[in-house]
Amino acid sequence: MPEFKAPLRDINFVMNELLESEAFYQSLPGFEEASQDLMDAIVEEGAKFAESVLAPLNQSGDEEGCTWSEEGVKTPDGFPEAYQQYVENGWPALAAETAYGGQGMPNLLGIIQNELAGTANWSWGMYPGLSHGAIKTLEEHGDEDQKQAYLTKLVEGRWTGTMCLTESHCGSDLGLLRTKAEPQADGSYAITGTKIFISAGEHDMAENIVHIVLARLPDAPAGTKGISLFIVPKFMPAEDGGVGERNAVHCASIEKKMGIRASATCVMNFDGARGFLIGPPNKGLNCMFTFMNTARIGTAIQGLAHAELSYQGALEYARDRLAMRSLTGPKNPDGPADPIIVHPDVRRMLLTQKAIVEGSRAFLYYLAQLGDVVEHGDEERAKAADDLMAFLTPIGKAFVTEAGYEAANLGIQVYGGHGFIKEWGMEQIVRDARIAMLYEGTTGIQAMDLIGRKVLGSGGKLLTTFTDVIDAFCAANADEADAPYIDVLKAYKDEWLTVSMSIGEKAMQNPDEAGAAAVDYIMYSGYVTLAFFWARMAVLARQKIAAGDGDASFYEAKLMTAEFYFDRLLPRTRAHKEAMESGSDNLMAMPEAMFDF
Amino acid sequence: MPEFKAPLRDINFVMNELLESEAFYQSLPGFEEASQDLMDAIVEEGAKFAESVLAPLNQSGDEEGCTWSEEGVKTPDGFPEAYQQYVENGWPALAAETAYGGQGMPNLLGIIQNELAGTANWSWGMYPGLSHGAIKTLEEHGDEDQKQAYLTKLVEGRWTGTMCLTESHCGSDLGLLRTKAEPQADGSYAITGTKIFISAGEHDMAENIVHIVLARLPDAPAGTKGISLFIVPKFMPAEDGGVGERNAVHCASIEKKMGIRASATCVMNFDGARGFLIGPPNKGLNCMFTFMNTARIGTAIQGLAHAELSYQGALEYARDRLAMRSLTGPKNPDGPADPIIVHPDVRRMLLTQKAIVEGSRAFLYYLAQLGDVVEHGDEERAKAADDLMAFLTPIGKAFVTEAGYEAANLGIQVYGGHGFIKEWGMEQIVRDARIAMLYEGTTGIQAMDLIGRKVLGSGGKLLTTFTDVIDAFCAANADEADAPYIDVLKAYKDEWLTVSMSIGEKAMQNPDEAGAAAVDYIMYSGYVTLAFFWARMAVLARQKIAAGDGDASFYEAKLMTAEFYFDRLLPRTRAHKEAMESGSDNLMAMPEAMFDF
Repeated sequence: MPEFKAPLRDINFVMNELLESEAFYQSLPGFEEASQDLMDAIVEEGAKFAESVLAPLNQSGDEEGCTWSEEGVKTPDGFPEAYQQYVENGWPALAAETAYGGQGMPNLLGIIQNELAGTANWSWGMYPGLSHGAIKTLEEHGDEDQKQAYLTKLVEGRWTGTMCLTESHCGSDLGLLRTKAEPQADGSYAITGTKIFISAGEHDMAENIVHIVLARLPDAPAGTKGISLFIVPKFMPAEDGGVGERNAVHCASIEKKMGIRASATCVMNFDGARGFLIGPPNKGLNCMFTFMNTARIGTAIQGLAHAELSYQGALEYARDRLAMRSLTGPKNPDGPADPIIVHPDVRRMLLTQKAIVEGSRAFLYYLAQLGDVVEHGDEERAKAADDLMAFLTPIGKAFVTEAGYEAANLGIQVYGGHGFIKEWGMEQIVRDARIAMLYEGTTGIQAMDLIGRKVLGSGGKLLTTFTDVIDAFCAANADEADAPYIDVLKAYKDEWLTVSMSIGEKAMQNPDEAGAAAVDYIMYSGYVTLAFFWARMAVLARQKIAAGDGDASFYEAKLMTAEFYFDRLLPRTRAHKEAMESGSDNLMAMPEAMFDF
Repeated sequence: MPEFKAPLRDINFVMNELLESEAFYQSLPGFEEASQDLMDAIVEEGAKFAESVLAPLNQSGDEEGCTWSEEGVKTPDGFPEAYQQYVENGWPALAAETAYGGQGMPNLLGIIQNELAGTANWSWGMYPGLSHGAIKTLEEHGDEDQKQAYLTKLVEGRWTGTMCLTESHCGSDLGLLRTKAEPQADGSYAITGTKIFISAGEHDMAENIVHIVLARLPDAPAGTKGISLFIVPKFMPAEDGGVGERNAVHCASIEKKMGIRASATCVMNFDGARGFLIGPPNKGLNCMFTFMNTARIGTAIQGLAHAELSYQGALEYARDRLAMRSLTGPKNPDGPADPIIVHPDVRRMLLTQKAIVEGSRAFLYYLAQLGDVVEHGDEERAKAADDLMAFLTPIGKAFVTEAGYEAANLGIQVYGGHGFIKEWGMEQIVRDARIAMLYEGTTGIQAMDLIGRKVLGSGGKLLTTFTDVIDAFCAANADEADAPYIDVLKAYKDEWLTVSMSIGEKAMQNPDEAGAAAVDYIMYSGYVTLAFFWARMAVLARQKIAAGDGDASFYEAKLMTAEFYFDRLLPRTRAHKEAMESGSDNLMAMPEAMFDF
């Protein structure tokens, strides 16, 4: 397993230099305490915890996996102790509301902490990570009693949470779900049904688990408009703040998976379990949408995390491994061969990883900041941020997880045959990364959300909220001598608007045109979005070098990686553009029976 | 696990209709018996064996894996019995020379048999598959005694073979290898060293294992020019045709791998093992090159095999799984939702798989036929085929395994979250497929072979052997009304020549330019090559439809898949072209220390 070193210099660059977080958060009510010193200190502590506590459990956790028995689920050795330490350090409270025990720090810091923990050990990070949805649900929709009973415990980390959505016959199409909630005389509900794919549904890391469950009331309308949200605790909260009676919710089994094997993925049986309505009846899906964007950023981070870890491993190997001579003459003449980092194609793979990592980091931290504006900005600013976020989040989720998977695979490739061997740890990264394009909405689902609901659904308005941001950046850096890539970015922005309009026009005639273009459109959008962040980073790097701010080689590397991105990755838009413009006939014409051969 | 159904209709189409194998083989001396009836019958028997014997062991083999002990390696339950049956059926002898017990059937049939077995169970197929290299080595370079002692047993399948090349510090760069061969008084050699990644190096499926080992004689020159080949049997051949004394070669351990877990990947210790020189001293690598191309086709087939199996699984699921309604209105109005095959993006994924499978099949069978011409054609024809094959083989190996991995991943994606769960079998296909881009020369190594040794090394001549084939096809089908895509193909052929020349010119100034372009160049070449085969298939399909040959829907599907390929996959060349033309500076400028961040 590559030894994980937290990429503090780059985190610092994005958080402090590119996104100027101190000034940014000083302007948002409630974040007065978020000084750069404090934020840096928190990130550094998070880095230490990830490096020293979580990273050593990553490979052993994958080997051991989770074990199911009638009594419950045993997580891998060391996982509960690491969680205990995490709670003692106060991490669960970091970005939660102060009124219920939270520290009220920016969401950005929560995302950075997720990234650090997840890069070190994504499976472990799933357990506290799943609490996030439950916390947000309770913060937004819980009544005061529910908040006191559950939210405080989740924020403290004494209890963890889950989101129980999927059933075996429905994942993306939640309108089909069947779990029932029958009203009881005491005002509670009897919840009956089976949920699958419940991450952290059962484990041995905390004394209680709070399930947020999607279910149907007896009189609920069919489809997505008849879904309500319920709190179903594993143990009833006791008066003394501890836990009482065991509830009728049990883990029937856990899944054997390709990756994230140390994360328990549970089949959960609700057998008339006691549940409590949260939020208005039949509005469950709407309630969930309130934190859908932050949940998606949490998954997008997985692409970044695995790309980072794979890059670190590949870079180390490329420096150590000796094979063949450089095409331009020996670079290690005293050794039997040159380190493979001298070979252009090895560099192509490393730079692809590096460009994905750094570009995605800038993109996702920016999204996290927007999330803080949505929650803390004044009405106008919050609305603008919400629009931008609504547009960019599916791109972040789909594009970064796809790119992260590519990066993880390149990490194997740099190792050659050794990359396929478990001992080196590179193949685990690929197996772990594979889920990210599937859960929290597959790439295809994100793509339909983007083109359908967001772009066409807003008549293009949501797209222009972002192209306006690009425009403003280009206008402010109009002198190409100081700001590379501005012309390229401008041309892409225009093209993006044009292709979007063209797809929209075709989709008015035939809705399948939107579906036919969707995934190529979101990948195209991802490459252009990353180009915007790479252009911003390049402008800043050039300014820093010109100002003689020191650390010149860091900024030089940014410029070189930007050049690589524009030269070698951005052109992939050409393929996506041709494919999405080719229309829907080449997909829809074939009768279903003719797919056989 | 998707139930494997041998794709006999498509195999038949490529073998008989597209490549007209009967007429083709009637024209090659030694293949007089290879009638269409006989070839069809062999393929059908192979299909039955693969479907009924090998496919049921695929998932269980992955779960069980291999087990090492001091006594040897235990393969998964059922593997030895399946091998026994394979031997009894005479499969090992299929394409081997008749002089030593072979059936002398075309290499093409051997490749088809590999495909069928490998699609059903790639891990199992590795055991007989590895004998291939040993057989070829003995056929080409063994003396009569060696052939009688070893080759006959390998052809019979009573013994299996291995190729022992890699050592822990050298894989691609074999010049670094250290295994020693010391001459003994009796004319044999004492072989000492450790080899890694030896597939089928130890197992319980056959009574003996014949290792072909690369090692250095005491006076050997350094580097690749000092490598010799040795036969090192696990047991000495006995006078009676059985086995005698145990040799000092032992399996020290087996690797834990991402995939192909039922294939034993062995560390082999040679402790003064008795070995016998085969071929001339210090010419071991040259001897190996004689069958490098067929070995590579054998690996390229893996991309096709996994793409096929993944497609079969995805197609079945896409027909069964209900989720959401078609964008153009319900297609399954009586059900709760529509089968997901109605959604354009699901079709995009399925058609990508289908286009990769069928295009790759045509490409690789064509290569296999060339292999038969090289071995059986008259001098002039053999030379021409050898040139074509030298050029096309690295493309086949790199492109088809990369495309096959994409297809396997799309299979997971069609399943959504279920694709990540072991039970469905889709994730195993991805894990198994991952090795194909690594062994038998990584994609990067194939790419350097193509651009360096083949294209630039021949002054472009090897490229034009294939573009001449394209030209001839275009000329023979010049009427676009009857032959779709001819103009597109012609333009690509011209562009291919132009970009090749341009890279060659740059590489004369700076050799790193070749390395910097290599992988994008081989992927570009792969897409153009597949376009040629898709155009050929489309022409033929249109002719068949026009002739009213029946089976019209099969040919219609070919035309539609061809359209999909030209519309949606071929445009990826645009990205590769821009990337490879961007030069080497964006890769080589960054000092090694600046890769950190």
